[in-house]
Amino acid sequence: MGDGAHIPVGIVGASGYGGVQLVRILMDHPHLKLAYLGGDSSAGQSFSDLYPHLDSRVEQVIEPIDLDKIAERCEVVFLSLPNGLACTMAPTLLAKGCKVLDLSADYRFSDLAVYKTWYGIDRTDEKVAETAVYGLPELYRDRISQAQLIGCPGCFPTASLLALSPLLKQGLIVPETAIVDAKSGTSGGGRQAKTNMLLAEAGGSFSAYGIARHRHTPEIEQICSDLAGHEVMVQFTPHLVPMPRGILATVYATLRDPGLVREDLLTIFTAFYRNSPWVKILPSGVFPQTKWACHTNLCYLGLEVDARTGRVIVISAIDNLMKGQAGQAIQCLNIMMDWDETLGLPQLAFYP
Amino acid sequence: MGDGAHIPVGIVGASGYGGVQLVRILMDHPHLKLAYLGGDSSAGQSFSDLYPHLDSRVEQVIEPIDLDKIAERCEVVFLSLPNGLACTMAPTLLAKGCKVLDLSADYRFSDLAVYKTWYGIDRTDEKVAETAVYGLPELYRDRISQAQLIGCPGCFPTASLLALSPLLKQGLIVPETAIVDAKSGTSGGGRQAKTNMLLAEAGGSFSAYGIARHRHTPEIEQICSDLAGHEVMVQFTPHLVPMPRGILATVYATLRDPGLVREDLLTIFTAFYRNSPWVKILPSGVFPQTKWACHTNLCYLGLEVDARTGRVIVISAIDNLMKGQAGQAIQCLNIMMDWDETLGLPQLAFYP
Amino acid sequence: MGDGAHIPVGIVGASGYGGVQLVRILMDHPHLKLAYLGGDSSAGQSFSDLYPHLDSRVEQVIEPIDLDKIAERCEVVFLSLPNGLACTMAPTLLAKGCKVLDLSADYRFSDLAVYKTWYGIDRTDEKVAETAVYGLPELYRDRISQAQLIGCPGCFPTASLLALSPLLKQGLIVPETAIVDAKSGTSGGGRQAKTNMLLAEAGGSFSAYGIARHRHTPEIEQICSDLAGHEVMVQFTPHLVPMPRGILATVYATLRDPGLVREDLLTIFTAFYRNSPWVKILPSGVFPQTKWACHTNLCYLGLEVDARTGRVIVISAIDNLMKGQAGQAIQCLNIMMDWDETLGLPQLAFYP
Amino acid sequence: MGDGAHIPVGIVGASGYGGVQLVRILMDHPHLKLAYLGGDSSAGQSFSDLYPHLDSRVEQVIEPIDLDKIAERCEVVFLSLPNGLACTMAPTLLAKGCKVLDLSADYRFSDLAVYKTWYGIDRTDEKVAETAVYGLPELYRDRISQAQLIGCPGCFPTASLLALSPLLKQGLIVPETAIVDAKSGTSGGGRQAKTNMLLAEAGGSFSAYGIARHRHTPEIEQICSDLAGHEVMVQFTPHLVPMPRGILATVYATLRDPGLVREDLLTIFTAFYRNSPWVKILPSGVFPQTKWACHTNLCYLGLEVDARTGRVIVISAIDNLMKGQAGQAIQCLNIMMDWDETLGLPQLAFYP
Repeated sequence: MGDGAHIPVGIVGASGYGGVQLVRILMDHPHLKLAYLGGDSSAGQSFSDLYPHLDSRVEQVIEPIDLDKIAERCEVVFLSLPNGLACTMAPTLLAKGCKVLDLSADYRFSDLAVYKTWYGIDRTDEKVAETAVYGLPELYRDRISQAQLIGCPGCFPTASLLALSPLLKQGLIVPETAIVDAKSGTSGGGRQAKTNMLLAEAGGSFSAYGIARHRHTPEIEQICSDLAGHEVMVQFTPHLVPMPRGILATVYATLRDPGLVREDLLTIFTAFYRNSPWVKILPSGVFPQTKWACHTNLCYLGLEVDARTGRVIVISAIDNLMKGQAGQAIQCLNIMMDWDETLGLPQLAFYP
Repeated sequence: MGDGAHIPVGIVGASGYGGVQLVRILMDHPHLKLAYLGGDSSAGQSFSDLYPHLDSRVEQVIEPIDLDKIAERCEVVFLSLPNGLACTMAPTLLAKGCKVLDLSADYRFSDLAVYKTWYGIDRTDEKVAETAVYGLPELYRDRISQAQLIGCPGCFPTASLLALSPLLKQGLIVPETAIVDAKSGTSGGGRQAKTNMLLAEAGGSFSAYGIARHRHTPEIEQICSDLAGHEVMVQFTPHLVPMPRGILATVYATLRDPGLVREDLLTIFTAFYRNSPWVKILPSGVFPQTKWACHTNLCYLGLEVDARTGRVIVISAIDNLMKGQAGQAIQCLNIMMDWDETLGLPQLAFYP
Repeated sequence: MGDGAHIPVGIVGASGYGGVQLVRILMDHPHLKLAYLGGDSSAGQSFSDLYPHLDSRVEQVIEPIDLDKIAERCEVVFLSLPNGLACTMAPTLLAKGCKVLDLSADYRFSDLAVYKTWYGIDRTDEKVAETAVYGLPELYRDRISQAQLIGCPGCFPTASLLALSPLLKQGLIVPETAIVDAKSGTSGGGRQAKTNMLLAEAGGSFSAYGIARHRHTPEIEQICSDLAGHEVMVQFTPHLVPMPRGILATVYATLRDPGLVREDLLTIFTAFYRNSPWVKILPSGVFPQTKWACHTNLCYLGLEVDARTGRVIVISAIDNLMKGQAGQAIQCLNIMMDWDETLGLPQLAFYP
Repeated sequence: MGDGAHIPVGIVGASGYGGVQLVRILMDHPHLKLAYLGGDSSAGQSFSDLYPHLDSRVEQVIEPIDLDKIAERCEVVFLSLPNGLACTMAPTLLAKGCKVLDLSADYRFSDLAVYKTWYGIDRTDEKVAETAVYGLPELYRDRISQAQLIGCPGCFPTASLLALSPLLKQGLIVPETAIVDAKSGTSGGGRQAKTNMLLAEAGGSFSAYGIARHRHTPEIEQICSDLAGHEVMVQFTPHLVPMPRGILATVYATLRDPGLVREDLLTIFTAFYRNSPWVKILPSGVFPQTKWACHTNLCYLGLEVDARTGRVIVISAIDNLMKGQAGQAIQCLNIMMDWDETLGLPQLAFYP
């Protein structure tokens, strides 16, 4: 299928923010080419009608979703659809030999009972789901390199887990004390028009939502439990920031050893991520703002130890649509293809 | 119907931004009381479900629209509906003795052919429409005081006309040179969810729309023509500002007498608006920002003469939902009831 | 000094945001009148040069700070100055018979050693400081009514303590588990020009600051300790939101009794604040956004219990310059004067 | 000096927004390398202290400005300084053989008397100034390719002139009717802390400034006059948009031939810019938003003809720090070095 130099790639669910990020990244990727754009309500529209600024570079029309056609034309398929749809398509695409990267929640859970509890969707593809790998390369790089099916992480779990992983893996914190207070720009809500996401409503204001019941909670807990070696519950609260892009997660946990200082943890984090080009541990006393990560695939981490309270506080900043979504999916694909995992991904912000 | 102290007021189309502004203003108005909230899609919902911050003060449930009931309960009715609906309700309400203030475009035009051309809606209520008065008190205070039916001005026309009126009335400018470059916060687009009004889309960005074809153009031209005494065409371009509220109109026109200086015009404007408590002429060299007018019924005007080019430039700032919509409607009602026209309206911004 | 109907009031440090809020509130207050505006760097400027939108209503010129003159003209003095200055002026003003309300940190601490540790300023006015009352009316209404000197709370402590107080007072939580993750609009940083507060820098971005070392920490802890009856340490992290006004505090704590449910706590909170007109407990399942409180003196509280983790989560929203600063100072003064504590204060937001 | 593959480049005035954009662009440029960072107040600081997100990639310390050292180390020097400083350095640097690209206003004017009138600075470097070329490649590509000294255009003139040039060059409009109503994000004001540029002040608000007296007026007029073949005066009004980056210019002019339609002008614009890779003429009926150009060197142009008024309206969108400043400077350097003019410059936005 490929032409040697360029692997043909399909995107199903092209009209949303995940879709347009993928399309945009593909333009700069040296080994990938866009071979198919598929959608449901947007089928028949030319992509440049939806995103006119890309006009000169994207000629595709969004096609109806036809799995045979997709598999014929594409080696790799990104599914960027509402929850509950990918699981009806991935099995077929895999059977036809495609690599599949799903941006929804469908393939993030090793236990489909958890998925059903939180997402309310029954599933019959357990066999396929078992083969899926959670697409957080900093934790599961080896398994990703062998996978045909990736369940790409949610945006909040990405920011949260990159902050928590070294702490849990090294047994440095009391797991049940972990609190993730996360804040996201409104593009995290997707491109569908919702009243509460209007600039008139959310602009100039700040609010919490999904308190004690957001669906990213079990996803964070699943990986934390994996790292801790036992079941872990995490307190997770998302908030809406009046800006289009960016996530900042403020992570609190009680240290097991109250004698640890900031520099100890910086050393541990730096070692933990020494082979992870997309994670930047900030110097002592420096903490990120979301804009530093904007339009890049980077995660910036800043650390503090509060000797008074015995807690560690980690500040984690990502772009919710890049490292939190489409960029990370491409990072996974780079690894699956045995390419450098930074290939074709935007590197550093244009500040301010 | 009234209890003497408080006139009972109804609002049809209560769930939108016009509705919630009216509800909020009524709370502070000493002589008005809310007697009815009506809606179509929102009927049956309690108002405080839509706007929980008003919970403790508004107990009403939104009722289905029933003109008989409304007329029974209310002396005054505000219609805050999409274009083309007020004209199906106002005749009945007027016949039943209500005063009607319409926030849509239905009763803004003295010539319904113009309305039909720009709004594409056929009308059979010419007789009623003829009795309507354009609700810009600074120009038509006397006629408003006698009216039973008010066509409340659009937000852009309000900002534009308050800048242009003294110039046109005194014959100071060449009318056909008038250009209105106007900028609005996104609440001007209403509360319906539209993709282009999402914070993710409109946030951190600026754009023009409706270029050379926005429906506020004929409305501005109608009043300008009235003031000039002959037909006037105005160039009007609206823009979208990444903020919830506020309009700034930058108005350009060529002076007939190139010898006029800024102070001359400040004197003329000050005299023109000497009995208009809601228009503030700023001191020489001072120009408004929209936030000064935010949440108030004020219009701030700043003036400049460019001796090089022979043009006058007027900067006009209002709150699009107050002086540009609901506030002005209450101002009109104050005049209709022979009350002080400032009654019950928010006076000065809380800056910043 | 007063004219019977109106108490003459002075504001020292008039040019900042605290000053302009006070000036603006005084315009609507039925029993107060502005008798003096004082400043240092701004002395000699007319107030309307700094805030032209108030032009028509404020005629005062900012005068150099002269305590004799102030005391001669004013019954009540608000000090809105950088930390370390109020303590050099308040003793004199009090001696001359003025009531003093200080918006800085100078009179917030019952233990000046704590003040010295966190603010680095030596003090010689212990005697006077001992007479100061912490100006959070919902907790200290009685003491405020008897006070001559008020240390007005910081903006973050106000939002945090109104969320924590019922929990601590009733012994419902394990105090040392309390975490306050707070978010503020940038006006909290004051009106002095700082690079990191530029719209170009802070706009479209989100960040944490003062992690584990913000000066509002000991202030929160002092009151929490008072409520708990023993020393309490609180984890407090402030964040910067890309908006001008508003604070949202997300407060976490572990419940002593894991059997408590949301409705139990709503009942307790409602009872706790039954005589507090400025605190609104939201209905079950409703959580505030900051804009609901904007330009008002209200605090909105929303509650959740996470039965999985055994924690209570309280969301608290205020306007940082109103209930978080100037509005609360006026509320205190209302109480000191034995007036209704809502007098002259803005009541409900104009949303959106 | 160069190592063959990479030309050594110096940046004087490294700490401001022009500086950081240049540094960031250089990272992606295949033939340029950063050899010197100079500053005055920031000398001695490491660049990554000012911009920590670049930490891992920029190791330079900002050095005091020493022209000998600069010329020794660099083939090309960018001057990004306040007006009036470049003219004291460029002559020396040129004499020592450097190519100089100045981002200030110092070398934008062919007539230094105009510069003196608007900038109030006396000059003694007429001889050098005569050799400077105005760095707008779409108009002066050939002269730029031969130049040693470039006066890089202002941000507003760039957006304005790209909209006006085809119209003036082809004699399609009445020049004296040209009005440019321009809107900019606040980074256009630079990185110095100014009260009116605080997020607390400019956030959620919109305002005009420099009405009839902004210094970009004579710059626009100089080039318009050059294109028209006679002296042209342009009405220019800048506005401040509550967002960090982006300029949108709305340009009005009366057509000489009222029979021209939109498609005629689109054809003319397309032809005019057929060799200009950084200018995108949008399809009929499509108009840009600033975010499309954000972080890219592109200029998007959308056109409308108002048959009613006989005017053409051109909407022009750029990133003020890219095409409006640093990006355009690199584009000029690419041309001076006989490289592809798109080399190393960011191409397409990551929307939203």
